[in-house]
Amino acid sequence: MDYLSRQKTFQQNLDAEAFDGFLLTHPPNLRYLCGYTGSNGLLLFLGGRRTFFTDGRYTEQARAEVRGARVVIPKGPLLPVAAKLMAPKRAKIGFEADHTTVALAADMRKAMGKSITWKPISGLVMRQRIVKDADELRMLRQAVRVGADVFQSALKHIRPGVRESEVAGRLELAAREAGADGMSFETIVAAGKRSALPHGRASAERVPRRGFVVVDSGVILRGYCSDMTRTVHVGPLGREERKWYESVLEAQLAGSDAVKPGKTAGEVDKAAREVLRRAGLGRFFTHSTGHGVGLEIHEPPRLGKAQQEELRPGMVITIEPGIYIPGKGGIRIEDMVLVTESGCEVLTPVGKELIEI
Amino acid sequence: MDYLSRQKTFQQNLDAEAFDGFLLTHPPNLRYLCGYTGSNGLLLFLGGRRTFFTDGRYTEQARAEVRGARVVIPKGPLLPVAAKLMAPKRAKIGFEADHTTVALAADMRKAMGKSITWKPISGLVMRQRIVKDADELRMLRQAVRVGADVFQSALKHIRPGVRESEVAGRLELAAREAGADGMSFETIVAAGKRSALPHGRASAERVPRRGFVVVDSGVILRGYCSDMTRTVHVGPLGREERKWYESVLEAQLAGSDAVKPGKTAGEVDKAAREVLRRAGLGRFFTHSTGHGVGLEIHEPPRLGKAQQEELRPGMVITIEPGIYIPGKGGIRIEDMVLVTESGCEVLTPVGKELIEI
Repeated sequence: MDYLSRQKTFQQNLDAEAFDGFLLTHPPNLRYLCGYTGSNGLLLFLGGRRTFFTDGRYTEQARAEVRGARVVIPKGPLLPVAAKLMAPKRAKIGFEADHTTVALAADMRKAMGKSITWKPISGLVMRQRIVKDADELRMLRQAVRVGADVFQSALKHIRPGVRESEVAGRLELAAREAGADGMSFETIVAAGKRSALPHGRASAERVPRRGFVVVDSGVILRGYCSDMTRTVHVGPLGREERKWYESVLEAQLAGSDAVKPGKTAGEVDKAAREVLRRAGLGRFFTHSTGHGVGLEIHEPPRLGKAQQEELRPGMVITIEPGIYIPGKGGIRIEDMVLVTESGCEVLTPVGKELIEI
Repeated sequence: MDYLSRQKTFQQNLDAEAFDGFLLTHPPNLRYLCGYTGSNGLLLFLGGRRTFFTDGRYTEQARAEVRGARVVIPKGPLLPVAAKLMAPKRAKIGFEADHTTVALAADMRKAMGKSITWKPISGLVMRQRIVKDADELRMLRQAVRVGADVFQSALKHIRPGVRESEVAGRLELAAREAGADGMSFETIVAAGKRSALPHGRASAERVPRRGFVVVDSGVILRGYCSDMTRTVHVGPLGREERKWYESVLEAQLAGSDAVKPGKTAGEVDKAAREVLRRAGLGRFFTHSTGHGVGLEIHEPPRLGKAQQEELRPGMVITIEPGIYIPGKGGIRIEDMVLVTESGCEVLTPVGKELIEI
């Protein structure tokens, strides 16, 4: 990972916004900018220099991981020590509006003294992170591959009578065995009527003799997240259920087809939504079509109605339309795709034809 | 769970602080006050009434779970709809200073209009949550029991050559099989020299022929967290290593012995720390002695140096001193304990004598 060039770009963005400095605490931003993977860290850009602060639990780790910044391990709380570096300078220091709590911002404000202008700003690091660099694409491809493998191995455990949690547990063990750091979100295994819950985290309920099973899961591999959903069907499949599945699949393909540099996130959402609307299923598609993925499982852009963000090459997004019919069941199909110069590349290497068990 | 009486107590606290209303978004606080277990919810106390907002993904779930509040599912973003309920009233509305980002607080501020006084406050729900009620103690006891069982089953997989991640994976599968919702934090399996990393999340490294292995793990069972650490030793044990282990164990017991209503959190920390200091190991104990546990894995009180919070019956805390000797290894021993009327009850049902493998 080329942390130094990321830091340089960030510094240029700070200069463009006329910030003298910037204080970061959000772990994925710390990892992106300086390589630190622990918690409770603090990265200060000030006067062209970078200083990283953490506590005694992370001494060895910070020294091994942090690039391009001086590492400081204060005895007590980090904030006053960071604040001391600034005072009594007169400076405009920015901080992460989307990741700093009101309480922490007030504590910082107090520790800094009045000569500092202390200003929240949204998405300054995300502006860089939204387009993935070559190192990140390599990591994301690996994460997607491992995510696909563990889905395939969990598939073998889906049968009537097995608990959703058992399927999730097998999937998660396979993830560990494949070297994943952990899961990128709570594994969803939602069977039968529970498949109508878009966020049906695996429960103690058992897979019924007949119905859909939605499996939505992702791994974290060296910090990078994967995200995929497949819906399988257990037992005899009715004509209506097949039609539902085919409509969702058509919507998913229409969404992927719409991905192109210069298109807006909202246009992709519309392409998928339109298919379900025409099939008379529009009211059952109750969420947005997708989202960015990287160091975090939910990143910009959000592929929702009328979202104006333009797609750019190097963005990695999910395409995941779904329908949820209360009392009957639900279907969601999700791939991760990379926005390329001319369209998109589907990263998820798993077929989307309906699997019947 | 008696959500209505929790809401009543919270309303009394609002009245005492002269708030006309309060807006909550922190998921554990939503779960505590009204039973909702999803994400993206918003609970508004206003004029003696409670309204709960969430998005279309959680319609069924909110209707099934939420107690004591009217459920509203707006088509678009939640905030403007919640804000509309207030305007054009003149009211002082509080929000969670520790869980609301600067960006969200500003968005709310904007949506509400100027007749509302919009005031951050820290820990208003935690003031209730810090002392567990009978229902919560029942849940916590179950979580601790499951946490102990899955540790025991993981123990069988620890042997030279096995990857840390394999041990963690087995432990996590056992947790799923025992009905856990998931893990309460990223499982730590830190073997050999890595045991000197206080937060050594399970990696692809293998357990060496000789050394300590720290296993720190917890489950979430119906929302409630468990947390325990045991350190085992693989291969021949030297005299010095045994002495280290005995010192940490003595510190752990001294910490537990110091737990009593009316004692401060700092006094418990001091009791454990003093043992290690006398053994000449004080400088290797680089973190605090413990923390509260409940719906979240880290809750108040924090058992750190000079912490003035007084212990009260019904608090559930960890006692977890440890030493980390760079290049050599580390040891941590952690129980969850309940503060009782006369002292404490150790909840974690697992022996603490050194296990040699």
